Amino acid sequence: MKLLRYGAPGAERPGLLDADGTIRDLSGIVSDIDGAALSPDSLTRLAALDPATLPAVDGSPRIGSAIARPGKFLCVGLNYADHARETGKEPPAEPVLFSKATTALCGPYDDVEIPRGSDRTDWEIELGIVIGTRAKYVSEADALDHVAGYALVNDVSERRFQSERGGQWVKGKSHDTFGPVGPWMVTKDEIADVQDIDLWLDVDGERRQTGNTKTMIFGVAHLVHYISQFMTLEPGDIIATGTPPGVGLGMKPPTFLKEGQIVTLGAAGLGEQKQRMVQA
Amino acid sequence: MKLLRYGAPGAERPGLLDADGTIRDLSGIVSDIDGAALSPDSLTRLAALDPATLPAVDGSPRIGSAIARPGKFLCVGLNYADHARETGKEPPAEPVLFSKATTALCGPYDDVEIPRGSDRTDWEIELGIVIGTRAKYVSEADALDHVAGYALVNDVSERRFQSERGGQWVKGKSHDTFGPVGPWMVTKDEIADVQDIDLWLDVDGERRQTGNTKTMIFGVAHLVHYISQFMTLEPGDIIATGTPPGVGLGMKPPTFLKEGQIVTLGAAGLGEQKQRMVQA
Repeated sequence: MKLLRYGAPGAERPGLLDADGTIRDLSGIVSDIDGAALSPDSLTRLAALDPATLPAVDGSPRIGSAIARPGKFLCVGLNYADHARETGKEPPAEPVLFSKATTALCGPYDDVEIPRGSDRTDWEIELGIVIGTRAKYVSEADALDHVAGYALVNDVSERRFQSERGGQWVKGKSHDTFGPVGPWMVTKDEIADVQDIDLWLDVDGERRQTGNTKTMIFGVAHLVHYISQFMTLEPGDIIATGTPPGVGLGMKPPTFLKEGQIVTLGAAGLGEQKQRMVQA
Repeated sequence: MKLLRYGAPGAERPGLLDADGTIRDLSGIVSDIDGAALSPDSLTRLAALDPATLPAVDGSPRIGSAIARPGKFLCVGLNYADHARETGKEPPAEPVLFSKATTALCGPYDDVEIPRGSDRTDWEIELGIVIGTRAKYVSEADALDHVAGYALVNDVSERRFQSERGGQWVKGKSHDTFGPVGPWMVTKDEIADVQDIDLWLDVDGERRQTGNTKTMIFGVAHLVHYISQFMTLEPGDIIATGTPPGVGLGMKPPTFLKEGQIVTLGAAGLGEQKQRMVQA
C-alpha cells in the first residue's frame, strides 16, 4: 500500500495510490497520514479497503511530504562505509545520530531553498524509516514490528553550517525545505528486503549517487533498536538512514548546488523526487 | 500572566495562575497552551479576561509541561562563560545549538528517569524562551517581538550518551523526562529584564548551581535572531538558553544523580521545580 498526501502546503489531504497510479482520496477514512493513521490497526483497516470505492482525485495536485509533520525527524550519519570514507572519516563504531528540524519537511517536488550565505548546499539520498508503534528499549529482534513503512528522503545539508559554525550538525540540516519526503510511504509488506534497495540521485541529469541499502553499516532493525535506547520513538516519526557515496562534499573538487539546478532521485519501490534549487 | 497546563499526562488542560495562586480553567477559551494560544492576538485576548470569571480548579492537580508538545525543543550549549570553563571548554565564538527530542518534555514535578546503563545523569537549570510568532531570518532588533514568554527548564543530560557514544549531543539530551518545563510560562511583559534573572538549583537540599542570566554569553534577542538564520522558529517552540556553572560534570570529583535523589530548582518570576530520580 502506498500512502501519500496531496494538496496545497499546509492543507494536504490523505490519499492512497492505487495499482493504476491514480490517487484515491482517503479523507473520509483518516484525517491525515500521521501517527494515528500508521498504527497497525489503522493500516489493516486501510489495506482492507477496495481502492475502487474511494473517490479518484482529478488532475495533478501538488504532492506534500508523505507523512504529516512528525514529532521527530532523525538522521543517521556516515552509515555507508564508502560515504564515510569520501567525507574523510572512519566508519563509526556505533550509529551517529542527529536531528533535523521538522520544519524542514516538504514535498518531493517542492523547490528546495539554498539558505542565505550558503555556498555548500549538498544532496543526500536516503531510505527513510517511518515508525508505526511506540518504541522504547526495544530489542533488535522486535524492532521491525515498530516500523510502518518506508519513504524516500533527500537529507539536504549545508556543509559549512553543519561543520564550521561552532555547533552540532542540526544547524546544517534544518533549513526549510531541507527534508523532501515521499512521494509516498510504502507499507513494509510491499518491500521484499529493505536491505536490498537500489538508490540513485542525479544533478542536472548527471548521475552523482548510486548505492544499495545492502551496504549500510547498521541496518534498519538495528537502527530502530539502537535509537530506542536513547529516546522514545512514536508513530509517524521519520528516521533517515544515511546516504551512499556521491555527495558534493566528496567530489574532487567539492561541488555544491546552485540556484536553478535540478536534483532528481529515486529508489526501487519508493518512487522518485525532483527538486529545483531556489535562493532563500 | 502565568499560563500552565494541569491534569494527567497526555490529558492536560490549559490554565491561568491568578494573583492569589489559584489555577483558573482556560479550557473554555483555548484548547491548550500551544502555538495557537501564544499568538499575540490570543495573548491579548487572555490578558483582557478577568480571572475571577474563570472556573477555579479544585485541589492540587498534577502540573504538566507549561507548553504543549512543540515542534522544536532546542538548546544552547556553553552559554555561560563560567560553565564553559568548568566543562573544560573555551567560551564559544557563536552559539552552540543542539536539539532535545520533544518526547523528553514533562511536568516540573514529575519523576525524572535515569536511563538504563546511565552513570552520568546530570542537571542543568536554564531559562527557556517560548516563541510566539514565526521567526525566519529575523534581525536581533526585532527578535523579542517573536517571543511570547519564558519558562523554567531543567535540561537533564546523560554525559556519556552526550559525548562518548559516537554521536551528536541529541543522544544524551533526549531520554523521556529529560525536559521538565514549567511550572508556568510567564508572558514577557511580566519580566522586567530577561537578562537579570537569578537561577538556583539544589540536589538533596545542597546548593549546586547559582547564576544570573546577566552572565549569558549570547542574550535572548541574539539567540532568537541567530537560530532563525538556520531554521524557522514557530509558535510554541522552546529554546533552553544554556546553564550557569555548577553541573555535576564540573564538580571535583564529577558527581551525578542517583535513584531517589531530589532536585529542586527555581528562578525569579519563573517559579520552582522539584523532581525525584527514578530508574528507567
